[in-house]
Amino acid sequence: MAVNHYAKGYRAERELKQMLLAQGFQVVRSGGSGTDGVSPDLLALKASKKFALECKARSSDYLHIEKPKWELMKSWEETTGLPVIIAWKIDRREWRFFPLLAMKDSGKSYSLNKKEYGNGMEFGEVIKTR
Amino acid sequence: MAVNHYAKGYRAERELKQMLLAQGFQVVRSGGSGTDGVSPDLLALKASKKFALECKARSSDYLHIEKPKWELMKSWEETTGLPVIIAWKIDRREWRFFPLLAMKDSGKSYSLNKKEYGNGMEFGEVIKTR
Repeated sequence: MAVNHYAKGYRAERELKQMLLAQGFQVVRSGGSGTDGVSPDLLALKASKKFALECKARSSDYLHIEKPKWELMKSWEETTGLPVIIAWKIDRREWRFFPLLAMKDSGKSYSLNKKEYGNGMEFGEVIKTR
Repeated sequence: MAVNHYAKGYRAERELKQMLLAQGFQVVRSGGSGTDGVSPDLLALKASKKFALECKARSSDYLHIEKPKWELMKSWEETTGLPVIIAWKIDRREWRFFPLLAMKDSGKSYSLNKKEYGNGMEFGEVIKTR
């Protein structure tokens, strides 16, 4: 179970990495992102556009991020000046993307639900250069 | 021998990471930087200053980087807009830092020697914000 969860997360991350490479980004996968819990999973880097992604592939219709983890990501974003974007994929649907501030305070965590999922940014919007 | 070399490289990378953290940078260690050979070892990220480091701890007085590897780093730098800086440390001496273009063409590789080592940038210069 834990292994399947890990494998699914890894596949999801690789898929996103390939999508970004195909759009001309350089992509850095953070070493130990799963273990030290500080750096987001992927950095997408182009001279004209840079951002970080935290990847969440889930079979459920809800996404929760515990507050201490969310705070770390917010702080990382402020220090680096690079937006941290939550990349969320529900089984058999497309990736959707959410700024940290789009998540709702639900007590112990920040959350998104299925309805919000449908309103998330699409990939094309995330990568576009202003 | 190979293991010692690896351990030394890992320690050197950790040392640099700690130096950067102490200066208020967020540091991303590139996952598989040793294996895919594309991303530099460390990214140093602050809102006002961002760069990448390729870390080389050596007991010898010369540093060589093979041309295909150097070209990959040059291309990474151009795509991302983040300077790639070679961090070189000779045993029992301080770290010195070199832009890619500071390396000399020596046939099959780009190189630096002991004399050039002494003229390399110091840590304080690398991290300073203009």
